[in-house]
Amino acid sequence: MSEMKTFSVAQIERFCRDAFRGFGFSEEEANEISDVLLLADLYGIRSHGTQRLVRYHQQIECGSIKVGVTPEIVFETPVSAVIDGHAGMGQVIGTYACKLAIEKAKRVGMAFVTVRNSNHFGIAGYYAKMASDQGFIGIATTNSESIMVHTNAKKAVLGSNPIAFAMPAEPYPFWFDAATTVVPRGKIEVYNKAGEPLHDGWAIDDTGNESTDAATVLNCIKAHAGGGILPVGGSTEASGSHKGYGYGMIAELLSSITSGGATSNHHTRIPGQGAGSCHAFIVIDPKIFGDPEEMKEHLSVFLKELREAPRRDPDVPIYTHGEKEVLSYEKRMKEGISIDPKTVGEMVDICRDLHMDSMEYLGV
Amino acid sequence: MSEMKTFSVAQIERFCRDAFRGFGFSEEEANEISDVLLLADLYGIRSHGTQRLVRYHQQIECGSIKVGVTPEIVFETPVSAVIDGHAGMGQVIGTYACKLAIEKAKRVGMAFVTVRNSNHFGIAGYYAKMASDQGFIGIATTNSESIMVHTNAKKAVLGSNPIAFAMPAEPYPFWFDAATTVVPRGKIEVYNKAGEPLHDGWAIDDTGNESTDAATVLNCIKAHAGGGILPVGGSTEASGSHKGYGYGMIAELLSSITSGGATSNHHTRIPGQGAGSCHAFIVIDPKIFGDPEEMKEHLSVFLKELREAPRRDPDVPIYTHGEKEVLSYEKRMKEGISIDPKTVGEMVDICRDLHMDSMEYLGV
Repeated sequence: MSEMKTFSVAQIERFCRDAFRGFGFSEEEANEISDVLLLADLYGIRSHGTQRLVRYHQQIECGSIKVGVTPEIVFETPVSAVIDGHAGMGQVIGTYACKLAIEKAKRVGMAFVTVRNSNHFGIAGYYAKMASDQGFIGIATTNSESIMVHTNAKKAVLGSNPIAFAMPAEPYPFWFDAATTVVPRGKIEVYNKAGEPLHDGWAIDDTGNESTDAATVLNCIKAHAGGGILPVGGSTEASGSHKGYGYGMIAELLSSITSGGATSNHHTRIPGQGAGSCHAFIVIDPKIFGDPEEMKEHLSVFLKELREAPRRDPDVPIYTHGEKEVLSYEKRMKEGISIDPKTVGEMVDICRDLHMDSMEYLGV
Repeated sequence: MSEMKTFSVAQIERFCRDAFRGFGFSEEEANEISDVLLLADLYGIRSHGTQRLVRYHQQIECGSIKVGVTPEIVFETPVSAVIDGHAGMGQVIGTYACKLAIEKAKRVGMAFVTVRNSNHFGIAGYYAKMASDQGFIGIATTNSESIMVHTNAKKAVLGSNPIAFAMPAEPYPFWFDAATTVVPRGKIEVYNKAGEPLHDGWAIDDTGNESTDAATVLNCIKAHAGGGILPVGGSTEASGSHKGYGYGMIAELLSSITSGGATSNHHTRIPGQGAGSCHAFIVIDPKIFGDPEEMKEHLSVFLKELREAPRRDPDVPIYTHGEKEVLSYEKRMKEGISIDPKTVGEMVDICRDLHMDSMEYLGV
């Protein structure tokens, strides 16, 4: 296979759920994990969708993601909880923690649930959306294996540390989800595959110099010997490097410091141990400020004003955050999800490993 | 006078307090306002210190900042409050709101106080610091008159919308305070005075083209006809423009949308009306996650690791956020605060207007 292959949403969903069942997760867990991956695919965030399945599989195989463990509340107040993920699957832990934050926010008005000893939890925005789908303001963040080189440093200490924020509005919510690095690692991989030079201000190599060579940068990242991706704002204070570094710090502090977990630079890469990922979920009920419908209307009007502002280029639309993703969702729900041949091959391999009939699941 | 003049902290403090008393504020209010301005000067954030006094004076004179009004709680729950500032002085309203958030967080564990109908409240970081000085995580943000041109737009809709975040640590707290624009307006003014070209990716003019001409950009901003400062991340999605735009949105939503106040693009510039600034104060007690001392220790270790990471250039130190400001504070507490001749002249004018003896207050 050398071409993209398109699957229906139901097909992908069934395959994902059964694959995770095959890896040893319960039906409920498998559904939760699949939901997170599927939303990423539907939103067009391919790096965090089905494409990632093979990596999760490897981590489960080597024991760094543990099957059969349950997230545990180790500290709790009416507005908060600290959860130990026990190196389980990030999406299961994240879903549990975010639901707990929503339940607490329903009772008290706002809540903050923090998590340690977890693994990659998919797109942070899934959890922010979970809150906003129920009418709340949702904030979700996570740390990750170190990849961000902070201002004036030449070795990565912070992770890609995304921050997601969602809030109900019409015709679609405000939904922001972005790494605090200038680009995610996935983008460097795309440029590498295409053999294209990176943009200035994206990455440095292990000598501390800016590099536009994707292969060099990826090798540096893999070797953990120095170099990495720059914060949003680039490499100098003049372009705001210290600001991106600051946003990365906010993600780090809200997740690993509040939970007493591993900071990004102490994530383990040792088989049998969880990565040590830490997450944070903050949920706010708009009722604590008055009438949620008024707030939604206020935000909807403002988002419209932003979209209808005079354009720099009449042919380039102005988006509000989450709009592109909703358009992608609608398109893919109708037309299906296209998957690259490499990933399809990996999915077929997974079918074989799990004694699932790839022809029945994937038509190949 | 054509040279910088250095004043002792006590001198500046006495002058500021008595000037605001002279403008009609109570002793308590005058002290609160002076505290915010003084911290900016001590932290080396000159644009938000004494230099701004003349602008506040003008706004008080024309009635856009009202004297003799009191912030009013218009909605309240145990974890929240919505405050109407009634177009009073931003620092008085901000101090009141932040103290309220701290009191609520002490009782409930975390709190969110939002404000509408306020004015410029000084540095957002003052309020975040107020919380962290008492052992809390403090988050403060505000919207402002529109100056940020969002991705693909050519007219400013969002304000400079700073986000401040502070958290206790040793030997100094983590303290981050930055506009979500790539640079604040004050920096464009500095480049204009120096006759230097702006950096690429900082600003666009009213035609929607990037401009490195400071005078042109400032004229566009003043005329409100289009153009303005770009978000952190610059003008294109490749450099992360949509991320800076997103952080600006988070500031906007937390302040104006939660409070039901004016969004940045609806700030008034009509004498006799308040600007309509909106603020947000979120305070979190680390006790809701366990032992605050452990958390402080955890953060202190991590900040040290960041500072001691391998440097790109051995001669350029790596800072953690708030470190430069603490160094500036210590230096200025000892050596005094240098003020430019134009500002000294304005201070002398204020003395004359208020029948204060400038020789006694300022030695000039």
